[in-house]
Amino acid sequence: MREKDFIETIKSVVGEKYIGDDCAYLKDLGITVTQDNLVEGVHFLREKIFAYQLGWKSVAVNISDICASAAVPKYLTIGLSIPDDVDGEFIKQFYEGAKNMASSANGAKIVGGDITKSDRITVSVTAIGSTKGRKISSRSHAKVGQKIVIAGEHGTSAAGLRVLIGKDLPKLSRSEKDYLVNFHNMPKPKLKFSEYLATRKGQSDYAMMDTSDGLADALSQISKASGVLMEIDFDKIPVTPLVKKFENYEDLVLYGGEDYGIIATTDFADDLHVIGEVREGEGVKIIRNSQAEIFTSEDIEKKIFQHFKE
Amino acid sequence: MREKDFIETIKSVVGEKYIGDDCAYLKDLGITVTQDNLVEGVHFLREKIFAYQLGWKSVAVNISDICASAAVPKYLTIGLSIPDDVDGEFIKQFYEGAKNMASSANGAKIVGGDITKSDRITVSVTAIGSTKGRKISSRSHAKVGQKIVIAGEHGTSAAGLRVLIGKDLPKLSRSEKDYLVNFHNMPKPKLKFSEYLATRKGQSDYAMMDTSDGLADALSQISKASGVLMEIDFDKIPVTPLVKKFENYEDLVLYGGEDYGIIATTDFADDLHVIGEVREGEGVKIIRNSQAEIFTSEDIEKKIFQHFKE
Repeated sequence: MREKDFIETIKSVVGEKYIGDDCAYLKDLGITVTQDNLVEGVHFLREKIFAYQLGWKSVAVNISDICASAAVPKYLTIGLSIPDDVDGEFIKQFYEGAKNMASSANGAKIVGGDITKSDRITVSVTAIGSTKGRKISSRSHAKVGQKIVIAGEHGTSAAGLRVLIGKDLPKLSRSEKDYLVNFHNMPKPKLKFSEYLATRKGQSDYAMMDTSDGLADALSQISKASGVLMEIDFDKIPVTPLVKKFENYEDLVLYGGEDYGIIATTDFADDLHVIGEVREGEGVKIIRNSQAEIFTSEDIEKKIFQHFKE
Repeated sequence: MREKDFIETIKSVVGEKYIGDDCAYLKDLGITVTQDNLVEGVHFLREKIFAYQLGWKSVAVNISDICASAAVPKYLTIGLSIPDDVDGEFIKQFYEGAKNMASSANGAKIVGGDITKSDRITVSVTAIGSTKGRKISSRSHAKVGQKIVIAGEHGTSAAGLRVLIGKDLPKLSRSEKDYLVNFHNMPKPKLKFSEYLATRKGQSDYAMMDTSDGLADALSQISKASGVLMEIDFDKIPVTPLVKKFENYEDLVLYGGEDYGIIATTDFADDLHVIGEVREGEGVKIIRNSQAEIFTSEDIEKKIFQHFKE
């Protein structure tokens, strides 16, 4: 959790204005921008992911942030650092994965970057989205009475990670394992959901965030930034039956992360999938089997730390 | 030089349209964008640069690319990866250097990024510039008959690097050493020069490039992209007398790199410092003491490789 302290230091030096949402919203230029690192041994293991998948994932996690900001993904640059034992075929596959992910996201394009030597594969991707014709979201825009809506199944990515590291596994067929691992290695950003909320006629202010660090974390971040209680019904969260085979699967769903779903708070849910409502108060309230429990942001950070992070 | 081959692979996968200039020019959004990596042990040694200077330099090298594209520096994101022994004070100093460099460059702002764990300090900065009111340059825009103009002294950064690694040094005072090392660690992008060319009334198409990889390399890149011969008079290159104390200082001036000067080709030089002229032909022609020598791009790559790179 040392990085969280460092982020406070960074905020105190450079100012808070742009830092807080998945993307910075640069109003004068009509764009949102985000940059995320993936480091070998920290975010992925080289022997557990194909170069094509790594390229795909590196771009997807940034496209997901652009979607969470409600902008249209447009352009990406890729800063890649590689050890000496990475060859030309790896580079080719990596960029093919990156390019195909980008193309599938509204035809976004890779337009530059840098390639340098290092000890570990380190990928730092920047994504730029256009805000033209879009109502831009913010974590701080949740209002009491709004519905909490969600896109994407949850817990699947963490289950896939368990398969990869071979930890606490239920009995699974080969194709079930493949489904889970593929979901983990090749996330699919929720472009349609984002577009729908961002372009809906008469859309009022709304909060939106991707669930990259876990569904509970996303709820908690919106709660903190907006000063509200986020109340959800656990059984309404989309979870594939396969995930329910895992021991304590509820933790995978709430704290596992890397599902790259999106949650939002909105006045009108229309046909979107509702999992709860914004209430007065603070923290995250999770209802299950008629029992309700309220978690503070510290509770949630502790849970994530205990189960999934260094 | 393995990275050069990889860049060809990348171009063949993602397409060449945007890759070739210091920045990608994203016309529909009215911006240029660039991303550069600095890796510990490859681009800098941790014991030879202060955290403040590293922050400054990481931003400066990207601002320099924005200036070379003729855009106005506006926003930056920083992807930082750090080993466990980097502390909060390092982070604070790093971001203060980064912020002060950015502020000095037209009030550019750091608006986001990521911080993760790694073995080596790895910095990947993305800079975004606005093209509003600017005539954007390209390496491919040099035309026969244009003057070659330059901003910034050359050879100083490579001399500073020699001081840092203690190699082939002439007799230098403490303050002389400090001047050279500081020039190497804290480059100053040429904002005024870029602005002048980019906003001059009636400015026709022109080539512009920074000299990050060496003055000879910049001349060679423009020669290749524009299909012209770049002819310069060596003695007209701005070189501080201190650099002339170094053995074979001509190599530092032409091939040393990291001076972050800018060269451009222009129909009207006005009061800008002229070092030569664009001619029919190919390669780089360097005149010295009434002797002329023509270098192909392969000659120049070989020179850079022999003297300065792995």
